[in-house]
Amino acid sequence: MHSVGRSWLLLTGFILFYIIYLLFGALVFSSIERPVEDKLREDMIVLKQEFLNLSCVNAASLELFLVKVLKANKYGVSVLRNSSVPSNWDLASSMFFANTLVTTVGYGHTTPLSDTGKAFSIIYALIGVPFTMLVLTACVQRLMYPLVLAPVGLLQRSGIEPRPATVVHFVLLLVLVVLCFFVAPAAVFSTVEVSWSFLDGIYFCFISLCTIGLGDFVPGTHPGQKYRPLYQVTVMVYLFVGLMMMYLLLRTFHKMADLHGLTTFLQLPRCEESDLDEDREPIVENERQSQKEKAANKPLEPGSQPSYNTINKG
Amino acid sequence: MHSVGRSWLLLTGFILFYIIYLLFGALVFSSIERPVEDKLREDMIVLKQEFLNLSCVNAASLELFLVKVLKANKYGVSVLRNSSVPSNWDLASSMFFANTLVTTVGYGHTTPLSDTGKAFSIIYALIGVPFTMLVLTACVQRLMYPLVLAPVGLLQRSGIEPRPATVVHFVLLLVLVVLCFFVAPAAVFSTVEVSWSFLDGIYFCFISLCTIGLGDFVPGTHPGQKYRPLYQVTVMVYLFVGLMMMYLLLRTFHKMADLHGLTTFLQLPRCEESDLDEDREPIVENERQSQKEKAANKPLEPGSQPSYNTINKG
Repeated sequence: MHSVGRSWLLLTGFILFYIIYLLFGALVFSSIERPVEDKLREDMIVLKQEFLNLSCVNAASLELFLVKVLKANKYGVSVLRNSSVPSNWDLASSMFFANTLVTTVGYGHTTPLSDTGKAFSIIYALIGVPFTMLVLTACVQRLMYPLVLAPVGLLQRSGIEPRPATVVHFVLLLVLVVLCFFVAPAAVFSTVEVSWSFLDGIYFCFISLCTIGLGDFVPGTHPGQKYRPLYQVTVMVYLFVGLMMMYLLLRTFHKMADLHGLTTFLQLPRCEESDLDEDREPIVENERQSQKEKAANKPLEPGSQPSYNTINKG
Repeated sequence: MHSVGRSWLLLTGFILFYIIYLLFGALVFSSIERPVEDKLREDMIVLKQEFLNLSCVNAASLELFLVKVLKANKYGVSVLRNSSVPSNWDLASSMFFANTLVTTVGYGHTTPLSDTGKAFSIIYALIGVPFTMLVLTACVQRLMYPLVLAPVGLLQRSGIEPRPATVVHFVLLLVLVVLCFFVAPAAVFSTVEVSWSFLDGIYFCFISLCTIGLGDFVPGTHPGQKYRPLYQVTVMVYLFVGLMMMYLLLRTFHKMADLHGLTTFLQLPRCEESDLDEDREPIVENERQSQKEKAANKPLEPGSQPSYNTINKG
């Protein structure tokens, strides 16, 4: 059981490092972007005052004014008096931004203004995106037993045939995920966020957990919200756990589809099957080939070809 | 070789259906959103005219005007005279939007205005996202031989040891992808898009192909661009092929890391290894266990437990 402990220690290490990485990103983004944003914010105040002081407002001056207003708005700097938030690059907001980068959600309600910020975003995501995938995979791996294998076993022991058991389990899991990660959060968001309807909440949850992240609805951007940093951290945790559940659901669906022959029907490999075939020693591969009645889904990878499958894992 | 033909036929069918699905999405989005957008656009013209006709522009009236301007701008409707584009919901733009939904890039430079549009987005992505993943996986599967297995074999035959050969191949592939899908497109974008620097181009390519999609840079939104629909379709093709190459790179990296024992080191399963173990008959599993010197990465899935691995694929 030594390896179990080491495995959990590694996972804890991953999660700790993930949090540290987000904090590090937040600090860097905040220090790069905050001065640029403050400058832009001051410029907008001056611009607005100058516009109001104009003796005559004509179409041309209005147009010029609006061009600048909309450009600043694109970077999340509003010209309005009771504008959303004091800064888009305080520590909590920067961490929120870092989180949307590494999870590939990318709302884009705030974006880096400076070239340094853009370059850092690239490097930060280059390391952060694969690492987040690794952490999510490691977490899902640990959740497979309690949330998939054990319940399916339980259903089988209660007398349901193996295949229907996987379907029943998947439907139950799906309902649970929809209730806990879509309906309940949507209800919370539509209460906390003044201008959101329940549909807006569902739309936000769906667009976020699919990592589409359009950014037309982003929690914690309404003026005068209390405990905003705490709220943003809560949303970040929701996003992380939600993504984990989406991965789990996808993996469970893949296993179920596989059992029901759907993947063979589509002539696609079960997840990375061809990789495994290539890595395996020829004798094992041949054995499997006959067992599987030569499921013809590797038309382009003849076994005779020197390739990854000639290399033994030492 | 009959199955090879069927396999390619299926892939062609997938891609055709993918294009039809995008066209269908474009038509629906266009018909739902265009009237709402036209109404908003007219309202903005009236609002601007009324504001210009005001005898005295004070802080309050300006504030009220700006609130409405920024709200419309959020939905991609600009108050400016030479505003970006005649419509965000013409056929090409709607298709571009549908494409950013199903690939989970989600720039969010235009977002649905109506509740119907939001609801349709959810349903559209619910089907479209998994289907796009399926099409991308199928394409990558076909590219594995010409772009990974064959070149590695070639390197081995030219006298390089198997393991270094995979590293050399991965580095070459990486350089090729960076040149063809980041550097070259960035150069093109910085030429075509008037206000983009080369860094902006690289930033756009990276943020897009990681599916982060912040949306601060979106091609084809500058006023007066020629052949805009054609340009948008080209960008869509670039995004699709680019994503395919990112998947291929990730898969190649995973194989290489696996060969070099990196995944075992991190005590994570090779891609979905536990799934395969669960599906396999016990005797095969035991055989592999001894071969792999019981790589202890399944602490939570004892073989004795009734689960997915008790089910034979019939």
